Amino acid sequence: MTSNRIGEKTLKLTAPVYIRGIGSVVGEDEAKGPIKQYFDVLDKDLLHRKESFEQAERRFFSNATRQALHNAGLGARDMDFLVGGDLLNQIISAAYAARDLDIPFLGLYGACSSMAQSMAISSMLIDGGFAENIVCATSSHFGAAERQFRYPLELGTPKPPTGQNTVTGAGATVLSTQPSELCIKYVQVGNVLDFGINDANNMGAAMAPAAAQTILTVLDDLQVQPDHFDAIVTGDLGVFGSEMLLDLCAQAGTDIAGVHKDCGVMIFEGVPKKDSGGSGCACSATVLNGYFLKRMLAGKLSRILFVATGALHGPTTIQQGESIPGIAHAVVIERSDI
Amino acid sequence: MTSNRIGEKTLKLTAPVYIRGIGSVVGEDEAKGPIKQYFDVLDKDLLHRKESFEQAERRFFSNATRQALHNAGLGARDMDFLVGGDLLNQIISAAYAARDLDIPFLGLYGACSSMAQSMAISSMLIDGGFAENIVCATSSHFGAAERQFRYPLELGTPKPPTGQNTVTGAGATVLSTQPSELCIKYVQVGNVLDFGINDANNMGAAMAPAAAQTILTVLDDLQVQPDHFDAIVTGDLGVFGSEMLLDLCAQAGTDIAGVHKDCGVMIFEGVPKKDSGGSGCACSATVLNGYFLKRMLAGKLSRILFVATGALHGPTTIQQGESIPGIAHAVVIERSDI
Repeated sequence: MTSNRIGEKTLKLTAPVYIRGIGSVVGEDEAKGPIKQYFDVLDKDLLHRKESFEQAERRFFSNATRQALHNAGLGARDMDFLVGGDLLNQIISAAYAARDLDIPFLGLYGACSSMAQSMAISSMLIDGGFAENIVCATSSHFGAAERQFRYPLELGTPKPPTGQNTVTGAGATVLSTQPSELCIKYVQVGNVLDFGINDANNMGAAMAPAAAQTILTVLDDLQVQPDHFDAIVTGDLGVFGSEMLLDLCAQAGTDIAGVHKDCGVMIFEGVPKKDSGGSGCACSATVLNGYFLKRMLAGKLSRILFVATGALHGPTTIQQGESIPGIAHAVVIERSDI
Repeated sequence: MTSNRIGEKTLKLTAPVYIRGIGSVVGEDEAKGPIKQYFDVLDKDLLHRKESFEQAERRFFSNATRQALHNAGLGARDMDFLVGGDLLNQIISAAYAARDLDIPFLGLYGACSSMAQSMAISSMLIDGGFAENIVCATSSHFGAAERQFRYPLELGTPKPPTGQNTVTGAGATVLSTQPSELCIKYVQVGNVLDFGINDANNMGAAMAPAAAQTILTVLDDLQVQPDHFDAIVTGDLGVFGSEMLLDLCAQAGTDIAGVHKDCGVMIFEGVPKKDSGGSGCACSATVLNGYFLKRMLAGKLSRILFVATGALHGPTTIQQGESIPGIAHAVVIERSDI
C-alpha cells in the first residue's frame, strides 16, 4: 500500500498544492450562456484570421496559459512543466503551444478528462518535490473537433438530441508550492470503464459510469457524504449523461442530486441549439477556471470535488464497431486555511 | 528551485526507483535484425486474424504489458497505475488495453518519446509516494501508423531514403519501490524544439536537435563526460538523424560518437528495405526492454542514458504547412548497488 493512499484509491497529498493562477478563454457561443461574465477573455476570431480552426485552437491554448501565468504574477520561465493536452490528433494544440511557450512539456491524452488528469499528475509531481510551479492547460474547438470526430461543419449535418457541442476555448491553472487562497488536497486516477455504448453522439452515456465509479470511490475513501462538498462538478456529461450519473449513484444508495453540477450543462444553459450541453477538453477547463474557482475565491464555495470525464474512443474505433470506453479522474479543491 | 533538481533541469530521485519487470513483443520484420534473440515474444499475426492493424497493435500492447507483469511476478491488480500511450489517434491502443487490464490509467502522448516520458513520470510518482508499482507501456504498428501518418500500405508508395520504418511491437517496464538489479536515478523532461523541418519522411532530422539538447543538458547537469555512460541510447533518430545528433553534439564541443547507440538503427541493421532504420513508440520500448535492460541484467552494461525522442506533428499540421517540432525526455538507468 502506497504511503499516500487513503482507502481504495484516493491519494492524499503530503502538503496542499496551491492554485496560484487561473485563466479561461472562450469563443462567441460560450459567451452567450448564463456564466459568461466569469470568463477572462472572449475571443470571437474562431478561424484565426481565416487560416484554420486548428491554428485558432492553438491560440486559445496559448492565451489561456498566458492568462493563468499573468494571474499568478509569473512568467513562462518560472514554470517547471507545462502539463496538458487537447482533443486533436497528436495533441497538436498543446504541443505547438508548448514549443512557443518554451516550457518543459508533458503531453497527455485523457480526452475530456484531460484537465483533471493534468491537475492530478501535476499535484503529485509538486508534492514529490519535482516542481515548484506547473501550468496545466487544455483546449478544444467546435470546428476542429467536429470535422475530426464526426462531420465537417460545412456538411451541415444535424445533431441527434444526445449530441453535445464541443466548447471552443481553453482553460489553464498554475499550481504551486507557494501558499494561496485555494489548494488541492486529494486526487484520484480513474480506471477505464466500458458499458458498451457505441454512439459517438451519446458520449455522456459512455462516460457516466466512470464518473459514478470515481465519485463513489472518493466519497467512500474519504468516508464522507456528498454534502461534504459544496459541489460535485463533472466535466461534460451533458443533460443526458448527468441524469444517468444521478441514477447510477442513486442505485448505489448515494444521492448526489443536491450537490451535482455539470460544466457541460452549465455553459450552454438556455443557449439555442445547444440543448444537450457542452463537451470537449475546454468545457471543464473553462468552467472550472472561469466559474468555480472564481466562486471559491469569492468565498461562495469552500470545497469542491472536480471530476472530469473522458471518452477514450477514436474515429477509427467507431468505424471498426468498437464501443466507447470512459474514464474519470478526480481532484479535491478547497479554500486554504491560510 | 525545486528540491530534487540538479543543475538546470535534471531531476534526481530521492531514492532509486527499481525496474522489476520487462516485456518486449515484436513483429516478423523486427525479428529479422541482429538483436532478434533479445525479444521476449515474436508475434507474426500482424492483422490480428485479419481484423485490423489497430486491433493487432492493441494485442501487442496488452501482451507486452502482461509479459512485464509476469516477469515481475506480479499481476495487474498489483499495479497502482498503467502509464503509457501510442501513436494512433486518441491513443486507442493504450486506452483499450487499459480497459481490458483494468488498471488506473494515465494516458499520455509524446509520440516516439512516450516510453521515456512514461518512465520519467512514473519514477517521479513512485518517488513521491503515490505508487508502489507502475507499469509503463507503449506500442506502434507499421500498417496502422503508415496509413494514419503517410499513405496506406495498399498504395505501395515508395519511401524516400530518409523515411524510417515504424516498428511493429510493444515494450513494457514495471517500475517499483521493491529493490531489484536495475534502477532509475535521474530523469529529465524535455522542451519542444523546432528547427523548421517539414518533411514527414525525415523525422530523424526533426528530432535530433531535441535529442542533442537533452543529452547535453544531462551531461552538464551531472557534470560528467559522455563515457560516464556505457551507452547513450536514443530512440529512433535512424541513420540520418543519428549523424545529425553526433554533428550537433560535436559542434557544442562534446563527442558522443563512442557511446551513442540508436534503437532505430540497431533494430533493422542489415534488414533489406529498412536501411534508414526503425521508428515509432515501440522502437525504443522494445530495444530498451529487449536488448539494453537484458544486457544490463547480464552485467554487460552498468549505466545508460536512455533518451527517447518524439516528433510532435500530426497529419493535419503537415497538410497545413507547419514544421515538425521535436522533444526528448531522458532517464538514467543503472545497475543497483544491492
